Amino acid sequence: MAFDPQTGQFEFNDWNISQAVSDLQRTIPRQNLLDQPAQLAPYECDGLSAYRKVPKMVVLPETIEQCQQIMRYCKERAIPLIARGAGTGLSGGVLPVEQAIVLSLTKFNRIRKIDPLQRLAVVEPGVRNLAITEAASQYGLYFAPDPSSQIACSIGGNVAENSGGVHSLKYGLTVNNVMGLKIINADGEIIEIGGGECMDSPGYDLLALMHGSEGLLGVIIEITVRLVPKPEAAQVLLAAFDSVTDAGNAVRDIISAGIIPAGMEMMDRLAIEAAEDFVHADYPLAEALLLCELDGTHSAIEQQMAQVESIVKNCQAHDISLSQDDAQRALFWAGRKAAFPAVGRISPDYYCMDGTIPRKELPEVLTRITELSKHYGLRCANVFHAGDGNLHPLILYDANKPGDLEKAEQFGADICKLSIDKGGTITGEHGVGVEKIDLMCHQFDSPELLQFHRIKSVLDHQGILNPGKAVPSLHRCAELGAMHVHAGKLPHPDIPRF
Amino acid sequence: MAFDPQTGQFEFNDWNISQAVSDLQRTIPRQNLLDQPAQLAPYECDGLSAYRKVPKMVVLPETIEQCQQIMRYCKERAIPLIARGAGTGLSGGVLPVEQAIVLSLTKFNRIRKIDPLQRLAVVEPGVRNLAITEAASQYGLYFAPDPSSQIACSIGGNVAENSGGVHSLKYGLTVNNVMGLKIINADGEIIEIGGGECMDSPGYDLLALMHGSEGLLGVIIEITVRLVPKPEAAQVLLAAFDSVTDAGNAVRDIISAGIIPAGMEMMDRLAIEAAEDFVHADYPLAEALLLCELDGTHSAIEQQMAQVESIVKNCQAHDISLSQDDAQRALFWAGRKAAFPAVGRISPDYYCMDGTIPRKELPEVLTRITELSKHYGLRCANVFHAGDGNLHPLILYDANKPGDLEKAEQFGADICKLSIDKGGTITGEHGVGVEKIDLMCHQFDSPELLQFHRIKSVLDHQGILNPGKAVPSLHRCAELGAMHVHAGKLPHPDIPRF
Repeated sequence: MAFDPQTGQFEFNDWNISQAVSDLQRTIPRQNLLDQPAQLAPYECDGLSAYRKVPKMVVLPETIEQCQQIMRYCKERAIPLIARGAGTGLSGGVLPVEQAIVLSLTKFNRIRKIDPLQRLAVVEPGVRNLAITEAASQYGLYFAPDPSSQIACSIGGNVAENSGGVHSLKYGLTVNNVMGLKIINADGEIIEIGGGECMDSPGYDLLALMHGSEGLLGVIIEITVRLVPKPEAAQVLLAAFDSVTDAGNAVRDIISAGIIPAGMEMMDRLAIEAAEDFVHADYPLAEALLLCELDGTHSAIEQQMAQVESIVKNCQAHDISLSQDDAQRALFWAGRKAAFPAVGRISPDYYCMDGTIPRKELPEVLTRITELSKHYGLRCANVFHAGDGNLHPLILYDANKPGDLEKAEQFGADICKLSIDKGGTITGEHGVGVEKIDLMCHQFDSPELLQFHRIKSVLDHQGILNPGKAVPSLHRCAELGAMHVHAGKLPHPDIPRF
Repeated sequence: MAFDPQTGQFEFNDWNISQAVSDLQRTIPRQNLLDQPAQLAPYECDGLSAYRKVPKMVVLPETIEQCQQIMRYCKERAIPLIARGAGTGLSGGVLPVEQAIVLSLTKFNRIRKIDPLQRLAVVEPGVRNLAITEAASQYGLYFAPDPSSQIACSIGGNVAENSGGVHSLKYGLTVNNVMGLKIINADGEIIEIGGGECMDSPGYDLLALMHGSEGLLGVIIEITVRLVPKPEAAQVLLAAFDSVTDAGNAVRDIISAGIIPAGMEMMDRLAIEAAEDFVHADYPLAEALLLCELDGTHSAIEQQMAQVESIVKNCQAHDISLSQDDAQRALFWAGRKAAFPAVGRISPDYYCMDGTIPRKELPEVLTRITELSKHYGLRCANVFHAGDGNLHPLILYDANKPGDLEKAEQFGADICKLSIDKGGTITGEHGVGVEKIDLMCHQFDSPELLQFHRIKSVLDHQGILNPGKAVPSLHRCAELGAMHVHAGKLPHPDIPRF
């Protein structure tokens, strides 16, 4: 293993695959050790397929002890280890690197316990997000975070990326819905983190630290999630607007009225057209569409929905509809939930961005995105969590057209920098991965990045856990010109070496 | 500075007070540098007055730059630094140690901004908890965490201890209501942590890490708190029970029915008697009293309160009353909120414990506490956050009676160990401080404690921030026999040196 100060990256030593198979199969079944090209190919990328790299080896452990064995094996030989869930991530967070072993957690797919009184479930990391809600529904409970990929994505990945969803406005991100974790640290030891069945735990709060740490601090092997009672009812209001600004004002006024919607989503004209063409949700054609869901008791919804209706009318909404039953509510959401594949039908390729801004900045940022769209000559559909200020611009491009991908990436980076300038962040819920690692140099200054490196350096001092993701080296930021370098020296001579 | 492997503690070098005054007064006004015995005496303890130690010097900075200067001064000379808020803590978290400078943040008492649209306030650490709500109320907003000490305690201390309160069941702990922090790290640099005005931030989640870190990882100098809309209405149900078990069952059934009360509190007979005698809240005399508050729209409260009423009746409740207006609601709460001072009237001294258990264990744990009370010959009043499973046994003793304090402490430790055995934790919201540091050896095993030490070692590698609190050294745990020591060697030869 060697560290390259120019790139800030580690170079990991070469190791022998047949030797590793022979070593690991002492405790891991041979068929769970993948080393053939055809077996390895599916692991070359996640949902960000613009970046690909076939891993050297994939291991599918079935027990916690096997996970510990793999971790210790990698530790002793300084082999990079990349834990992988369902592979639905959108930032290249599980992109293999040279010499890496991918540790797939798909066989950890059991729901170990559902406790309706404690309102919690204990699950393995490979359990699908939606499967938790399915299993809890017999008790009138559900797991609140609902990323668009919830049919496929796994809860371990949700923790690693701190996923959100349509209902995060009221119910929070994954971090707000997890009570405890069991992880394997870089030493191969099992660590229990968080209060588990209790509300809090003494000692430093490592529970949130693991959320969104993108596999860099440990491997998650068990998750205790909070379940919430299904509300008695839920209703969606659909409203059309002649301008994105009017819709943005409606969002502002609903929040100002003290209402906390279960979800509040916006779509712009291009997204509406694409979705309507795909799922026929009966959306009115307009410059902007607002979906506002309230949940709670029937009576509370009735009272607050009247307020929401009056607010959107004051903001020049037209074509206002209220869902009359759960079937219609599902139809109203169908267009929003299918917006990404719908956009995929009108363009050979699209690039899904993810930035967060203070919600008062929505109108100005959307106007600026329209200008950038003209500048780059690339269409952009906007579908987003308006209540959270979490944008998802979909940049349409054609990968077969030379230069188009680069233009799309530049456009995306401009949106992220715009978010930072407006007091926002470069990612709301998709993570940094490899996609946004350079943008981290703009988001944070060197003492802040150094705090991250310090944490990493003590929890994984060899830097074997998912190297090259999430947190850029200070050298990398210096090269990008995002950091002041005096006389060739970085601001902190004591930077840990990754 | 020297490290003592026997005690696991640092010994800090002697330094000269007049020299420090002369150095620091270059930028800090002389009257803000306290060095006279009469000036220093008020800083000898916090709310846990059984432990006292007069600090060597107290500094009251007025600006962030002054805080940075003090931090750098301490760093260069390896002087221990203890940040202090209002001093209302209950675990000795700001107890001075030998050679320490206490950095009091009382002059940081400004509310910098209230943004009703973003629903947030930016405040300095010395702002009182209740002052935030007072300032936000003109916008129909409030700050949800409400520790009993909220009139006096400061928000910086709330973050440092991750305080809860009566309404944590529905609205969460401090960590769930803070969006961003500005801290000074051990290098004297300013670090911004968290999304601030945004829902999330990339990079490792250091926001929660700072919560409950008891001043060991940095000095908090600015806090961005989330404000929540005042509910349209709130109502409290008061119900009496002939046994603690019946009341515990009512708690269980309310939660199982999918209701999320704004607060759900229990008091036992001794606590009821003391409170009634003190504030005359018209509490019925019974073995247990349950207070259950619902908030939301009028209609939702009406509907759910009918359910709660029917549930408590099924659990043999009697003397059920519903608050008819806010004045009566305040009266119902008055007894609960005054329970601690009320108990102070019936005993020369009391020791307030704080443990958390899974709420299903309530009946068994309360029974065991009664047995322990008989065993130690000390009365114990129970007043607690039943919905959260957060116990606050008040152990009554007489400090003038030889051996009584020791018995009370032993009784308290037994309650904590009992909490751990039941899957709970040694503290819900009061912190570890010096009070429970030895119990941490029972709560965590050595790899877990080591993770804590690793974090501390990189964020404060000299160990100058609030030494001797919150996280015990592995040596200390080994001496207590709570850790396996083989051939005189600790399990981890690579333990950081504190």
